[in-house]
Amino acid sequence: MAKVAVIMGSKSDLPIVSDAIHILKEFNVEVVARVMSAHRTPDEAANFAKEAENRGFEVIIAAAGKAAHLPGVLAAYTTLPVIGLPIKSSTMDGLDSLLSIVQMPTGIPVATVAINGAKNAALMALEILALKYEDISEALKDYRIFMADKVKEQDKELQKAIIDV
Amino acid sequence: MAKVAVIMGSKSDLPIVSDAIHILKEFNVEVVARVMSAHRTPDEAANFAKEAENRGFEVIIAAAGKAAHLPGVLAAYTTLPVIGLPIKSSTMDGLDSLLSIVQMPTGIPVATVAINGAKNAALMALEILALKYEDISEALKDYRIFMADKVKEQDKELQKAIIDV
Amino acid sequence: MAKVAVIMGSKSDLPIVSDAIHILKEFNVEVVARVMSAHRTPDEAANFAKEAENRGFEVIIAAAGKAAHLPGVLAAYTTLPVIGLPIKSSTMDGLDSLLSIVQMPTGIPVATVAINGAKNAALMALEILALKYEDISEALKDYRIFMADKVKEQDKELQKAIIDV
Amino acid sequence: MAKVAVIMGSKSDLPIVSDAIHILKEFNVEVVARVMSAHRTPDEAANFAKEAENRGFEVIIAAAGKAAHLPGVLAAYTTLPVIGLPIKSSTMDGLDSLLSIVQMPTGIPVATVAINGAKNAALMALEILALKYEDISEALKDYRIFMADKVKEQDKELQKAIIDV
Amino acid sequence: MAKVAVIMGSKSDLPIVSDAIHILKEFNVEVVARVMSAHRTPDEAANFAKEAENRGFEVIIAAAGKAAHLPGVLAAYTTLPVIGLPIKSSTMDGLDSLLSIVQMPTGIPVATVAINGAKNAALMALEILALKYEDISEALKDYRIFMADKVKEQDKELQKAIIDV
Amino acid sequence: MAKVAVIMGSKSDLPIVSDAIHILKEFNVEVVARVMSAHRTPDEAANFAKEAENRGFEVIIAAAGKAAHLPGVLAAYTTLPVIGLPIKSSTMDGLDSLLSIVQMPTGIPVATVAINGAKNAALMALEILALKYEDISEALKDYRIFMADKVKEQDKELQKAIIDV
Amino acid sequence: MAKVAVIMGSKSDLPIVSDAIHILKEFNVEVVARVMSAHRTPDEAANFAKEAENRGFEVIIAAAGKAAHLPGVLAAYTTLPVIGLPIKSSTMDGLDSLLSIVQMPTGIPVATVAINGAKNAALMALEILALKYEDISEALKDYRIFMADKVKEQDKELQKAIIDV
Amino acid sequence: MAKVAVIMGSKSDLPIVSDAIHILKEFNVEVVARVMSAHRTPDEAANFAKEAENRGFEVIIAAAGKAAHLPGVLAAYTTLPVIGLPIKSSTMDGLDSLLSIVQMPTGIPVATVAINGAKNAALMALEILALKYEDISEALKDYRIFMADKVKEQDKELQKAIIDV
Repeated sequence: MAKVAVIMGSKSDLPIVSDAIHILKEFNVEVVARVMSAHRTPDEAANFAKEAENRGFEVIIAAAGKAAHLPGVLAAYTTLPVIGLPIKSSTMDGLDSLLSIVQMPTGIPVATVAINGAKNAALMALEILALKYEDISEALKDYRIFMADKVKEQDKELQKAIIDV
Repeated sequence: MAKVAVIMGSKSDLPIVSDAIHILKEFNVEVVARVMSAHRTPDEAANFAKEAENRGFEVIIAAAGKAAHLPGVLAAYTTLPVIGLPIKSSTMDGLDSLLSIVQMPTGIPVATVAINGAKNAALMALEILALKYEDISEALKDYRIFMADKVKEQDKELQKAIIDV
Repeated sequence: MAKVAVIMGSKSDLPIVSDAIHILKEFNVEVVARVMSAHRTPDEAANFAKEAENRGFEVIIAAAGKAAHLPGVLAAYTTLPVIGLPIKSSTMDGLDSLLSIVQMPTGIPVATVAINGAKNAALMALEILALKYEDISEALKDYRIFMADKVKEQDKELQKAIIDV
Repeated sequence: MAKVAVIMGSKSDLPIVSDAIHILKEFNVEVVARVMSAHRTPDEAANFAKEAENRGFEVIIAAAGKAAHLPGVLAAYTTLPVIGLPIKSSTMDGLDSLLSIVQMPTGIPVATVAINGAKNAALMALEILALKYEDISEALKDYRIFMADKVKEQDKELQKAIIDV
Repeated sequence: MAKVAVIMGSKSDLPIVSDAIHILKEFNVEVVARVMSAHRTPDEAANFAKEAENRGFEVIIAAAGKAAHLPGVLAAYTTLPVIGLPIKSSTMDGLDSLLSIVQMPTGIPVATVAINGAKNAALMALEILALKYEDISEALKDYRIFMADKVKEQDKELQKAIIDV
Repeated sequence: MAKVAVIMGSKSDLPIVSDAIHILKEFNVEVVARVMSAHRTPDEAANFAKEAENRGFEVIIAAAGKAAHLPGVLAAYTTLPVIGLPIKSSTMDGLDSLLSIVQMPTGIPVATVAINGAKNAALMALEILALKYEDISEALKDYRIFMADKVKEQDKELQKAIIDV
Repeated sequence: MAKVAVIMGSKSDLPIVSDAIHILKEFNVEVVARVMSAHRTPDEAANFAKEAENRGFEVIIAAAGKAAHLPGVLAAYTTLPVIGLPIKSSTMDGLDSLLSIVQMPTGIPVATVAINGAKNAALMALEILALKYEDISEALKDYRIFMADKVKEQDKELQKAIIDV
Repeated sequence: MAKVAVIMGSKSDLPIVSDAIHILKEFNVEVVARVMSAHRTPDEAANFAKEAENRGFEVIIAAAGKAAHLPGVLAAYTTLPVIGLPIKSSTMDGLDSLLSIVQMPTGIPVATVAINGAKNAALMALEILALKYEDISEALKDYRIFMADKVKEQDKELQKAIIDV
């Protein structure tokens, strides 16, 4: 069973991050969700990242806002793929979070997704896991069909609705 | 042997992108580098992405500038992980490329790295491949030590240099 | 009778996009409104664009938000004029949508209007159609007079209101 | 023969704008290129726009930088389609030009292309003219094939070059 | 008696602009408030600016949002000082309005104040008029004292309030 | 007893700034909170800064929004450390406040904290005072433990909560 | 004879600012150019502004870069109109200078012109002076004609040049 | 003797950072300059910060570019004041560095100075040290006089130069 860590800098990020947890669980991935702060519990974060591979984690999703150092700090201590999820905070419309995560210096990459893009963080984790887990690969292909069907349904609804527009 | 596709929107991106190709080759990954345009050769791009998995590719790196659609368009046609590399063009300092790649809508993620961050695109590809290829995982750990040693060397040089600052 | 396609990436864009549909209908243009996603139903979008000219469409309006690839993807498959309508999403205040649409690479232009500027997307479509349809050309001139009259009316109301300011 | 006006705010814009003129001439469009300023010769600009349709113009391309009012000012006086070409000036990286052109208020649209995107301004003009001129429509389709061939050529060259990367 | 024109692009700007009108009236300036659009009633705007000096206006305040051309268009037709007041619209947080007004090309200046800074637009008009009208000059000095007193009062209130903070 | 001045440009900043006052008082620092304006009471501000050191102040926290000159103006008149606290105003999302405070010219530094980051302004003041006051130094270390404990508590709560996510 | 002060924060601003001095002198305005720093010589700046009106100055132009406080600081001490000229420095492309000058808080306006727009700063000063000095008013009207003629000349040159484009 | 650590993420930052070292040495502060990377040598950085206080450091200056985590990572491990110096890199004009440093989450402040503002980083360190070291306090006051004298000298030179402007 594939195993993913979902780390957030503060429990206040959970309303956004829970979308990622839901999707991972739907795909039967074992999820360990943790609150750890790159600044307030830096040793915990460092130790978690150092031991993540040995504890069986295969991908880490890290969510953080403002000067969002958590994904980069975790990435510094592991060669597991770290997916950075920028959280929009009350100022700067998420641009600070995005740049603090995506503009990593050479050597330590963080795979960044859209601001508040929790679902995509999970889906990227699944695409990575799919290299190793055939069933996830198949499930992702089904999910694409499911999404396409939803768009087509919306398209049909629009045809009806548009008469009254 | 692991196999990665490196796609660029124009041959003019090669001076940046070649850093990614070099690193992948250093790690003994088979690299196929292609010029394909999401806009000028859209069918070629779509077909490449559709068949990428069957042709043995495991990760796709896609580099593009301005309204950089290439990574997202490739990602639309495959569930392989697509790493987006925003190229800085002559206006907007790369912000257009970054936002066009990272702000993907829900459902189709692109793992985005820093503007012009070709080395990190390659290293993220390697971290992903390391889930499956033990030797890449080991090589990445060595690379981290190599990078750390370079920093420590710089640190020593600075101690000497600083006397004359 | 002139014929315009109004394509949106998600049905959630309809509250904005419906302004465009209304105006086109007021000018007696045949409107086909569709939900198609550059990422979730890429083949449908590509096919629609490839066949749009043969099916009698003369202009395409495409609305999308965030990494808004839909207008550019449609434009890649047709030489019909594509008008891009950037939708403001919940982060980045529409700047991501705008840059993802307007900064198209050389060769495949998208005629971009203001963020959430659905009415102007429709009016630009009408100005284009007016090259061929004399009645639309006349109607547009009347519409300009109608708009000017509304401004003049506001001006008069202000003269009265200002006494109590 | 189709007829397009290419208006620039200053002769210093010509090095950028000339790309548009070249392409239009290649497609056998009659081009009238003019220097007119929305601020320094506002009456000339207004009069030109008022009479443009009667003088046989079918599309207007207007290039301007900084607080780039020229495209909007011309659009205020005509219902011909006005294509706005934002010119990058020495500060603000073109963002000022882009926003001043694209964010037009409701009622008077300007079809905006990329910053310094002169070729795309011309190609958008051609796509508009193609509604009426069959030969331009055909020539645009050939141009798409020509562009695709150039990408494919680059792709082939890259295959050779990559050996030595 | 000094005379100032306050022009707005739409009556919807009045809630912001009315602050300017109030202050001017408090200083016994004759105010003529008008709705005129650079795009929807361009001739009215041009004519107003051309005749403003002859009609006794000494300063023009022009408020506009988005691609805010109104101040620049008025300035093109008069050598009276034009004060530009950028109005924040629903997207881009006022940056589009600000850049469209302040980044005027060489030759035709617009004196720009803060986004939604209607009071400052009026105070700048008064500072300009004070060159000629001694009583306005005196009144402005009193107003500075009045403002300083208000700050000092707030300061005192804070001393009391702070005990309970 | 350590002594800190907390200066704000307007009493309307108090809801944000009060967080700084609270923390300083919790650490037993004497706080003098004042409303002073760099623009409306410039002499008061200048005089306060000139005499701050003689009156026993050791650090100054200055909060201001928009063209936020207050921290820089105070810093110009004293060599005490001035901590700049950018206040988010109704436009520009705090970017104007931040740049106006942090981009100080060479020679007169302002120690800038995050937009609306009142708590961090206080904590930076405490870190500075800790150089001289052993008890503050100890209290800060306790505070770090207190913060870490809160994160760990959140982490535990999450483990429970996540079952129901 | 009209009298204008041109103040710059550093002598390094002179290459930009000299354009303003030239134009003012061409219009026979007495110019006093000074280097004064809001931060390094704040008392000199404050005193200059306090006495400017008594010393016969009628308008103040103040140029500054980065956290450009100089115009606002001068404006705080005088009710003369202060024109703010944002200087582009080596980072942030002038956006910091612009926002630090234009976003002045209510009560103390600064009339802001474009980034590096020294000529427009001078022309705005002249437009203000023209309220009082008839000859400047006339000269400004001639200057507009002179500028229009230059545009028309460029237009003619373009007609010739375009043949060879 | 006061003791300051100057940490940079890469030796390539030295040309900027050396200004800080020079000033600190001029003020007779003991400077230890180190290259340490938050990402490539995270343990070294963490350990340095943990032991900094015991090793006698009183202030830490940390310079970093792009997703500039170094100042925040050091601050996470010490209650010494950390001054963050954002380095402008080849993209994003330093905005990424600035936001990644200044937007620190509540609890762990970093005192941020201007982009590339190395001198101000040193002067802020000196202002902090001056709380404890009387001689530094005096030297800083002399330095202010020295800077003011330089401005006054520039002012005199300008008076002469301006004759030939």
